[in-house]
Amino acid sequence: MNETSALITDFYELTMMHGYYLEHHDSKAVFDMFYRNNPFQGGYTIFTGIEELIDKLEGLRFSESDIAYLRSLSIFDEGFLEYLRDYRFHGDVYAFDEGTPAFPGEPLIRVESDLMDAQLVETLLLNTVNFETLIATKASRMVLATKGHGRIMEFGLRRAQGENGAHSASRASFIGGTSSTSNTFAGKKFGIPVSGTMAHSWIMSYSSEEEAFRKFTEIYPDNAILLIDTYDTLGSGIEAAIKIGLEQKAKGKKIGVRIDSGDLSYLTKEIRARLDEAGLEDAIICVSNDLTEEIIRSLVADGAPIDSWGIGTHLVTGGSQASLNGVYKLSAKEENGTMIPCLKVSNSYEKTTNPGIKQVYRFFDDNGNALADLITLADEKIESGKNITFYHPFSTADFFIMKKGRYASFRPMLTKKMENGRRLSPAPELKEIQRSSAEKLTAFDKSYKRQINPHIYKVSLSENLRNLKTELLVKTRTRESEMKNS
Amino acid sequence: MNETSALITDFYELTMMHGYYLEHHDSKAVFDMFYRNNPFQGGYTIFTGIEELIDKLEGLRFSESDIAYLRSLSIFDEGFLEYLRDYRFHGDVYAFDEGTPAFPGEPLIRVESDLMDAQLVETLLLNTVNFETLIATKASRMVLATKGHGRIMEFGLRRAQGENGAHSASRASFIGGTSSTSNTFAGKKFGIPVSGTMAHSWIMSYSSEEEAFRKFTEIYPDNAILLIDTYDTLGSGIEAAIKIGLEQKAKGKKIGVRIDSGDLSYLTKEIRARLDEAGLEDAIICVSNDLTEEIIRSLVADGAPIDSWGIGTHLVTGGSQASLNGVYKLSAKEENGTMIPCLKVSNSYEKTTNPGIKQVYRFFDDNGNALADLITLADEKIESGKNITFYHPFSTADFFIMKKGRYASFRPMLTKKMENGRRLSPAPELKEIQRSSAEKLTAFDKSYKRQINPHIYKVSLSENLRNLKTELLVKTRTRESEMKNS
Repeated sequence: MNETSALITDFYELTMMHGYYLEHHDSKAVFDMFYRNNPFQGGYTIFTGIEELIDKLEGLRFSESDIAYLRSLSIFDEGFLEYLRDYRFHGDVYAFDEGTPAFPGEPLIRVESDLMDAQLVETLLLNTVNFETLIATKASRMVLATKGHGRIMEFGLRRAQGENGAHSASRASFIGGTSSTSNTFAGKKFGIPVSGTMAHSWIMSYSSEEEAFRKFTEIYPDNAILLIDTYDTLGSGIEAAIKIGLEQKAKGKKIGVRIDSGDLSYLTKEIRARLDEAGLEDAIICVSNDLTEEIIRSLVADGAPIDSWGIGTHLVTGGSQASLNGVYKLSAKEENGTMIPCLKVSNSYEKTTNPGIKQVYRFFDDNGNALADLITLADEKIESGKNITFYHPFSTADFFIMKKGRYASFRPMLTKKMENGRRLSPAPELKEIQRSSAEKLTAFDKSYKRQINPHIYKVSLSENLRNLKTELLVKTRTRESEMKNS
Repeated sequence: MNETSALITDFYELTMMHGYYLEHHDSKAVFDMFYRNNPFQGGYTIFTGIEELIDKLEGLRFSESDIAYLRSLSIFDEGFLEYLRDYRFHGDVYAFDEGTPAFPGEPLIRVESDLMDAQLVETLLLNTVNFETLIATKASRMVLATKGHGRIMEFGLRRAQGENGAHSASRASFIGGTSSTSNTFAGKKFGIPVSGTMAHSWIMSYSSEEEAFRKFTEIYPDNAILLIDTYDTLGSGIEAAIKIGLEQKAKGKKIGVRIDSGDLSYLTKEIRARLDEAGLEDAIICVSNDLTEEIIRSLVADGAPIDSWGIGTHLVTGGSQASLNGVYKLSAKEENGTMIPCLKVSNSYEKTTNPGIKQVYRFFDDNGNALADLITLADEKIESGKNITFYHPFSTADFFIMKKGRYASFRPMLTKKMENGRRLSPAPELKEIQRSSAEKLTAFDKSYKRQINPHIYKVSLSENLRNLKTELLVKTRTRESEMKNS
């Protein structure tokens, strides 16, 4: 097991934990992780990062040097520092499965532990899941943008936000549907296929493109991708590539070409024609150069003959949106031995939280199409074969009825992943996560997956949850108003 | 020394390195790192990451498991894998000092080594420097936006791109001028002051704000920052804070309040008035909630009485721009024992590189104000006390004359940081880097530091460099045109 430093946390988690320790405030607490808005003006996210998070939580430790550092700050009690020495994460974790399509407001992770333990892990949890979910979602959107024309190679390492940002991005991209990574370390660590072509400097280190390409195919005879835009794409570049391509063809080998600059729609069509004319119909065309999902969509709509997309910056950083705004909120706490639901009210009604220990059910029709999600209290039983009322999450008087004939099945989305701080089952293979993620996404109508202005997938509250939320909100507002008048 | 896995590289660096190995293509090569556009529509960057990069290059290793992984891919020669076992970075590195204001087109790092070595490190170099420079620049812009009203606490860990993305962002932010971080790990690793307040869950775990605040000040009596927006900022929140603030004042202690939601301009003014009225004139006001540099500017312009800014997402990810487009290009290579300048031409004239082994000089007037930067060939001597012609970097016929009376001094910006793969001097303290960075930035007129549409700081070519570039460009185009006609 790899150790993860428990100092990877906001300092206030530690000062609060210390506070709880001194107060013997070790009552149980339940926290939910959820996010409020879909990124990229889209209709869904691909929930990702939970398997990495579980590994990190299992290996969470305060090393001797971590404790020495905390001691040097001169604000922590010595008994607390002793406690940290033996600290292990010991909570129960429920979560959506890695790679599952998810929606705003749904509790995607539920942490049940004592207050100290559950509080400490907030930052690490958010750091891991916010970022990976953002990137898997971006990858999924880019894959949809290709409409099946060509595979995506993730080339992001040089523009990613730090090394680890790069590795996690490679992993999350793959879950979202990319086919390979240029990041060799991520290839080793996660078993993602690695890929790459050649740099302009390779070409420039030889006296001509022809020589550079020939040397390359001598070393890498199979499916060599030749970079043709160093000097003149439609001149010396494609000419040398065709020459080498024909030599390779004579040996029963295929080539490809890569274009990294210029008008990719015009150039790919010209290059395709030149390759076909030369008898190199099976040579593939790979493009790169600051590609975004909008550019992919435009090139696909234009009919650009592209077989492979090399995408870096805008995939591994999220591009236009560099973070997912996931949060972690207290939903229940122990008082005198019983769990009491908690509500965080807000002057913005959408920011008032859903109280209590909760579950999410996804409803499907008899063709397996996803219909809507229902957030319930964890201990309520949803009975099959009955009409079910779905309440609007904010406008609490609003609802619709899910008729008993409309749905064929429903499935609980939060399952137990950790018990007393221990993983309950081994992480699935990354390839299997990628496959099941894509399969789950096909259950959603394409209107939910539209690039912008998608149809809003319904996430509703059960009647019990809606009633509890209303009751607690009224209670809070009444108490406030009494305080003001007193 | 910490080891850094040499697999943190794009796969094509390894396949090219392997190619060079097999070809005995171990000639010398020089690469430049530079970027083409300032981020955030601004006028400068704060060059950052070089000290971390030097550490990584010194510790760059292929571990046994790295080599086993590469072997498993079945494309690398066994002799090459043996070579990797003993591989150490052995190049010379010249660079701008950490934290120095920098501009588009300037070679900020120059790597001189053999082709294999210089090629391998491209991705790691770009990953490190692109990201840290982006974030230090963002921090610098945010600090300028405050106009001296209040300090910035970096609170980004939960929204940063991966753990390491977070740590590097904390470091880079601090160099750019923030005063503390919430990231405890970064506090330990880099010696950055850590800070934090309390979470809504702390409040919610007690029966009232008053109780939660009192417990907190019992544990942390000095300068406790009380979070007042859990239920009703201008009601129960500020009332409880004033009550506790007065209790603390009686003990000779100060408090502060933090507001994390709502209209921060209106609320801070109201809260300031309430605190002052209660006799708590020295209580500070801290704000947070998805702050951007535009929001800071607007609040400062509005006269919002803010003493401390807690900033996360938009600081540690770059927000609207999540990457710096720094590149690494071959500028010279050895042929028959002599170094030949290299040019990468492009159909976009701004993308044609500057050839040869280069130096950058920064010119100052006699008040120490920066006037312009001049890119020269490294071996040319710039003579003081003479008129100097500054050529436009792209429009190569365009120029201006730097008169001998206009400038008082100039300074070479690229200095030798590594020799044969070894660091030449210890990294300065982070606090010292922060201080000298701020000092260097004051040498630039404020028009260059305007938030958008800044005055463009001039980066020019020396006559020798401009002549070389012109000559190589003409030669390349002539050769191409001859090839087309042949």
